[in-house]
Amino acid sequence: MLQITPSIQSTVQRALAEDLGPGDITTGSLIPPDCCGLGTIVAKVPGIIAGLEVALEVFRQADPSVEPQTLLADGSEVAPGTVVAKIGGSIAGILKAERVALNFLQHLSGIATETTRYVMAVEGTKAHILDTRKTVPGLRELEKYAVRVGGGRNHRYNLADGVLIKDNHIAVLRAQKLTLEAIIHRARENAPHPLRIEVEVETVREAREALGAQADVLLLDNMSLEEMRLVVTLVQGRCLLEASGGINLETVRAVAETGVDLISVGALTHSVRALDISLDIE
Amino acid sequence: MLQITPSIQSTVQRALAEDLGPGDITTGSLIPPDCCGLGTIVAKVPGIIAGLEVALEVFRQADPSVEPQTLLADGSEVAPGTVVAKIGGSIAGILKAERVALNFLQHLSGIATETTRYVMAVEGTKAHILDTRKTVPGLRELEKYAVRVGGGRNHRYNLADGVLIKDNHIAVLRAQKLTLEAIIHRARENAPHPLRIEVEVETVREAREALGAQADVLLLDNMSLEEMRLVVTLVQGRCLLEASGGINLETVRAVAETGVDLISVGALTHSVRALDISLDIE
Amino acid sequence: MLQITPSIQSTVQRALAEDLGPGDITTGSLIPPDCCGLGTIVAKVPGIIAGLEVALEVFRQADPSVEPQTLLADGSEVAPGTVVAKIGGSIAGILKAERVALNFLQHLSGIATETTRYVMAVEGTKAHILDTRKTVPGLRELEKYAVRVGGGRNHRYNLADGVLIKDNHIAVLRAQKLTLEAIIHRARENAPHPLRIEVEVETVREAREALGAQADVLLLDNMSLEEMRLVVTLVQGRCLLEASGGINLETVRAVAETGVDLISVGALTHSVRALDISLDIE
Amino acid sequence: MLQITPSIQSTVQRALAEDLGPGDITTGSLIPPDCCGLGTIVAKVPGIIAGLEVALEVFRQADPSVEPQTLLADGSEVAPGTVVAKIGGSIAGILKAERVALNFLQHLSGIATETTRYVMAVEGTKAHILDTRKTVPGLRELEKYAVRVGGGRNHRYNLADGVLIKDNHIAVLRAQKLTLEAIIHRARENAPHPLRIEVEVETVREAREALGAQADVLLLDNMSLEEMRLVVTLVQGRCLLEASGGINLETVRAVAETGVDLISVGALTHSVRALDISLDIE
Amino acid sequence: MLQITPSIQSTVQRALAEDLGPGDITTGSLIPPDCCGLGTIVAKVPGIIAGLEVALEVFRQADPSVEPQTLLADGSEVAPGTVVAKIGGSIAGILKAERVALNFLQHLSGIATETTRYVMAVEGTKAHILDTRKTVPGLRELEKYAVRVGGGRNHRYNLADGVLIKDNHIAVLRAQKLTLEAIIHRARENAPHPLRIEVEVETVREAREALGAQADVLLLDNMSLEEMRLVVTLVQGRCLLEASGGINLETVRAVAETGVDLISVGALTHSVRALDISLDIE
Amino acid sequence: MLQITPSIQSTVQRALAEDLGPGDITTGSLIPPDCCGLGTIVAKVPGIIAGLEVALEVFRQADPSVEPQTLLADGSEVAPGTVVAKIGGSIAGILKAERVALNFLQHLSGIATETTRYVMAVEGTKAHILDTRKTVPGLRELEKYAVRVGGGRNHRYNLADGVLIKDNHIAVLRAQKLTLEAIIHRARENAPHPLRIEVEVETVREAREALGAQADVLLLDNMSLEEMRLVVTLVQGRCLLEASGGINLETVRAVAETGVDLISVGALTHSVRALDISLDIE
Repeated sequence: MLQITPSIQSTVQRALAEDLGPGDITTGSLIPPDCCGLGTIVAKVPGIIAGLEVALEVFRQADPSVEPQTLLADGSEVAPGTVVAKIGGSIAGILKAERVALNFLQHLSGIATETTRYVMAVEGTKAHILDTRKTVPGLRELEKYAVRVGGGRNHRYNLADGVLIKDNHIAVLRAQKLTLEAIIHRARENAPHPLRIEVEVETVREAREALGAQADVLLLDNMSLEEMRLVVTLVQGRCLLEASGGINLETVRAVAETGVDLISVGALTHSVRALDISLDIE
Repeated sequence: MLQITPSIQSTVQRALAEDLGPGDITTGSLIPPDCCGLGTIVAKVPGIIAGLEVALEVFRQADPSVEPQTLLADGSEVAPGTVVAKIGGSIAGILKAERVALNFLQHLSGIATETTRYVMAVEGTKAHILDTRKTVPGLRELEKYAVRVGGGRNHRYNLADGVLIKDNHIAVLRAQKLTLEAIIHRARENAPHPLRIEVEVETVREAREALGAQADVLLLDNMSLEEMRLVVTLVQGRCLLEASGGINLETVRAVAETGVDLISVGALTHSVRALDISLDIE
Repeated sequence: MLQITPSIQSTVQRALAEDLGPGDITTGSLIPPDCCGLGTIVAKVPGIIAGLEVALEVFRQADPSVEPQTLLADGSEVAPGTVVAKIGGSIAGILKAERVALNFLQHLSGIATETTRYVMAVEGTKAHILDTRKTVPGLRELEKYAVRVGGGRNHRYNLADGVLIKDNHIAVLRAQKLTLEAIIHRARENAPHPLRIEVEVETVREAREALGAQADVLLLDNMSLEEMRLVVTLVQGRCLLEASGGINLETVRAVAETGVDLISVGALTHSVRALDISLDIE
Repeated sequence: MLQITPSIQSTVQRALAEDLGPGDITTGSLIPPDCCGLGTIVAKVPGIIAGLEVALEVFRQADPSVEPQTLLADGSEVAPGTVVAKIGGSIAGILKAERVALNFLQHLSGIATETTRYVMAVEGTKAHILDTRKTVPGLRELEKYAVRVGGGRNHRYNLADGVLIKDNHIAVLRAQKLTLEAIIHRARENAPHPLRIEVEVETVREAREALGAQADVLLLDNMSLEEMRLVVTLVQGRCLLEASGGINLETVRAVAETGVDLISVGALTHSVRALDISLDIE
Repeated sequence: MLQITPSIQSTVQRALAEDLGPGDITTGSLIPPDCCGLGTIVAKVPGIIAGLEVALEVFRQADPSVEPQTLLADGSEVAPGTVVAKIGGSIAGILKAERVALNFLQHLSGIATETTRYVMAVEGTKAHILDTRKTVPGLRELEKYAVRVGGGRNHRYNLADGVLIKDNHIAVLRAQKLTLEAIIHRARENAPHPLRIEVEVETVREAREALGAQADVLLLDNMSLEEMRLVVTLVQGRCLLEASGGINLETVRAVAETGVDLISVGALTHSVRALDISLDIE
Repeated sequence: MLQITPSIQSTVQRALAEDLGPGDITTGSLIPPDCCGLGTIVAKVPGIIAGLEVALEVFRQADPSVEPQTLLADGSEVAPGTVVAKIGGSIAGILKAERVALNFLQHLSGIATETTRYVMAVEGTKAHILDTRKTVPGLRELEKYAVRVGGGRNHRYNLADGVLIKDNHIAVLRAQKLTLEAIIHRARENAPHPLRIEVEVETVREAREALGAQADVLLLDNMSLEEMRLVVTLVQGRCLLEASGGINLETVRAVAETGVDLISVGALTHSVRALDISLDIE
């Protein structure tokens, strides 16, 4: 279950402020604050639910007197019509939180649902599905959580908790006549010891070079299936292998079957399709 | 051109904080701060660019010494390979801003590109394409801007700057024996006078009732094309008509041809596909 | 009853921080934190109370252990000596919140009291008393609430939730050879559809022109009673009429009797006289 | 000249956010951002100007491209028609800052003008006019500055920078059988040494007692002129004397002539009348 | 007992955010959130405890479900092995708060312990031990509290709540031909009346001059014991005397015996030795 | 050179707010804002300077008109009398920033100086000196920077960028009948792949067990020199070895000579002695 940290509380607070502005004029004009009822949150399409605790936090912040209650846990599969939560109390309170609560819930459930599709696609292989840093600005913590709900794993959270030597780093340093081995050595010298050294490689030859320089992880960027298979054979488990670059639901199975350990998919978070979920007042 | 307000500055600051954490360990371990170069931001697929000023703000905040410069204005059409901006200066500075700048740019350009598709689909009719409040939490200001860049128009920004009497409001008040006319009257009595009264209707009969009660705008929710045509004929321009409910690129033209004034599309912002854009160091 | 939103909580928090600084030195030096008693908040002059929930929030934030309790609701009429609230608990806690709680209460009650005077002055006419954006920086949300408590209505909250074409807009655009009709048309084209178009006019002729261009509301600025009467006759209910400009308690009745719908009074919020209220420890 | 501290910058930022909301819809719909002109800020009534630097900060924050310039310094006397500042640049930028800039300027100039009236009323006596902590929540720093502009002096800024033993403190401690002398002694023991001990007294007898206990300042609360004269004679300069309690412009001279050193006037900040100032676009 | 103000809550929140980053990866990978146990906080060396309420606030913020409980009050003397608090509940919650809670507790207890040593060293003299403004940035409120826990007194909290004319002020003004008397006079004229005038003097002659100009407090900076004795004799109680400048545990007794009233020691807060305290899970 | 990030700017802003409160009363009462001069920052004792850029940021924030300039870079060795920076401009501006600037500079230089002592003590061995998470709350970013200035290396920054399985984790999991091998396996399964697995061990036997389970780093906690030597021999470079636990300047050399790779020293940041540095106005 997601724990609502102060940072998530702030994210919710900003989202509510953004949507409420100085107040819900329509509801304020029509419905007395003490008029009570029950709202139900209902899935309209099949999918995996994520973000229920965030939605509840939205209701609680918008009106501390309402009583939101989940009927399912994050990660549950829903069908059209499945009731995922109920919110009792002031209808005015419920209505002014509705849109923000659904915006979080639809977005995060969209991520969990899509992640699950990838995870199922590689079932039976040893590959794990990873997210990336291609997240919607301001929502990384929640989006990475939704990936975990969908069965995926998290790549590094930010630039501080992983060493990933990318093409741009290598290009700059090669222009200064450093070999890949020297680059990896420099990273190992200077980076905090708790971090592994991961290196992006684009050819089998680079992979061999990085392996020789004792990289801990190789990021195989935009390689063909054939090349990936070669690298898997070459490495023999001496370091981890991560595949990335435009991998989609059609291609992910084949990639997994090359024998790589990890497959990272930017689209999990950069191109999210909201899961259709709505709120009805009874 | 987008003006960078303090609120956008904060959004950028939070996004950078989220991605940097305590610092870019890889770049910090490898590349001296005074090593300079030039980064170019390049489109990889066709689309409409939006958010360039935000991307530039990211670079400026991440490292005040870098000099970012746009080559195009927001709203420009790009092809694969089009260079949209150049950033000169410390390579370490450029690299630590790269991901966040691209995350904003890809997301907002994705919105502008999709909006343009809808706007072009209804060209020649009188209908305007509108966004909704179904935005990604925390990014509403920027997402609504991207919709405008794509040629769309903005619906209300938040709950305070528009009166929209929705199905849930009506259901609650009908349960208290109020007629639609009485509901509209109450809203007009209590809402600030600068705001029009918009009412959601689901049948032609409700539309007639709302028109009789002098609603300023009718929101035709999930009506068939036939019903919309009937309402257009009925109303004769005496109030504005807005169509909504699951309208997509395949169906939007037919909806526009019914004669409605406005078509609102939640997917513009709730289901964004990032436009593929990358940064290369030269 | 006012709901204490996060934004009001922040306003209270800033006010307390401003008044407490690093701590209440006098009380800290003299009175042990566990010394308990009862504070009563008492009106010293007649008036209308507003802001009690804010005052209670001040006490709660200053010392979560005190138990504040209102004896009246906002909008109640008080006489000298009326007890409006009681606060039980740590005397040190009560004393350190006293000044800030009273500052809010006196200011907001001052607004509600003055608004009531205007509302009573126009009783029996159809005119509503409105506030303006001439509020004390940082307190708009609360001041607009106090106006409502006093029986007034709110004009637009900020620049985003109403279109009001003012003299300065018109002067700039006329200098570019636009007619008033063209200006109104441009606003209607570009502004979000939920907003009415209100236009400031200074002469009967301008009023006629704006009416012809289908403005939704006319703001009659600094017109004589005679002119206002002429405009009322001219308009015949086809749009709303708002009078403004130096209207005071002596003149407001006559203005209302011209038949205008709305009268806006800047002094309600820009020139507030605090209502005298004090706190006694028993 | 007022220095714009980070805390004043935040106050301005909040005020702008409050008034702008998601943006100036009217100006945005009508006037292109690159349309330039000149705004002049003009006094409409006689008074003393205060807060010009704050007004300029508002313009700068709202649109960094505008060029605001003061023609007078704070403390200047103005007549109807006096131009106090000019702002060149984007008319859209000027208009969206106008109201907030004037709200600050009118409020602070109102305080400076009223303070000056009190200062002039006591001219020739040795009495100084003081403000109190009865300020509008969130504006204390600026309001106390405006009092200084008007020739007044500042009492303590907050509860931490002065020891003022008030009636409520004394009542609580007397109920525990402490004498006034014991109370003053306890304060001196516990308070930080940089602070003087000021004691509120309501009778000549209490004044004598406090003087005997070596209070540094006596606050004569709601005493008659006769009583004040007696205390002045009694004290003979051995401590400072401050008069307070409902003193107004009619009575302040007589109070000053009793020989007290300080006169504190809550109305300077709790009941401010805005000075009428406007902005015209040329 | 320390009251947890909003400002302390923010300090704790920042410290937790700093230490948690996006989450406790180790504990999250190993220990389920619902695995419960008991943590005990134990002193490892003798000393005086301060900051227990802050430590508890850390646990509460990190995981609202844990139940922290103090066994001692701040100011208690501890021996190696003394249990100072117990925290029951989710082990994951306890572990993620552990380091931050201990960091506060060790730092503040270090201050209280060292302060107590100074206070005991001057026992029997009339001198009080004072802190200074030489505090660790961001922790002043808590550090000054810890000094009080240790039996010390607080000098001014910040630049606003005390007038202290230092060597740099005097040098600048003497260069403009002002006498020390004129300087003191100017300060008395301009400073708010609740504040005493304290003057730094470096020689007996300056002390005499400042005394003549009726300074309220003299700060004897880096004087020899002999000089201090001379000033004590000279002043005869007519103003307070504060000694400062490199005074340490070896020298403080001799300084106190010269007869000064106050001794300020920067090292209490600028050179803190953490008290060794740890947390064990049972 | 330290880059001043937004997060450091906030830290400085809070420190200034804390020390300034509503303003520098002494300087404001005595010295006109336009009185200019030159301040020099001078070391009083030998040491290593760190934090100069932070000190400059303090001056710039306190008064944007002053011109601070460093004469040395961070990491420079200073002797008594070495001038490290000069600040020209408004003396009032310089004085109000003085204390905060020095507080940062003295604290960070104290850390750099002490770190250098440890680094020099192990010179010639292969051991690196590491900091810990035992930092002063709120200053971690700066303190870890100061450690690097002194030649030390950083351990993990926060709980998210390193897996360190500590005694408390192991105790809890052993109680559930997990072997150390199972624990390490579980961490590897669940933690993000960029992170190494470090395990705290207290005996040679545990070290052997952790090595067998392929831990990446062993933390040798409070082991004797003899035990450490045994582990070094056992491990033969197959994983990194970190020594910790009460290591001080007297013992660090002997620890390094056992052959461990890393030595972490909590006292570097939890028990800082400020370096004596002062500011003189010329």
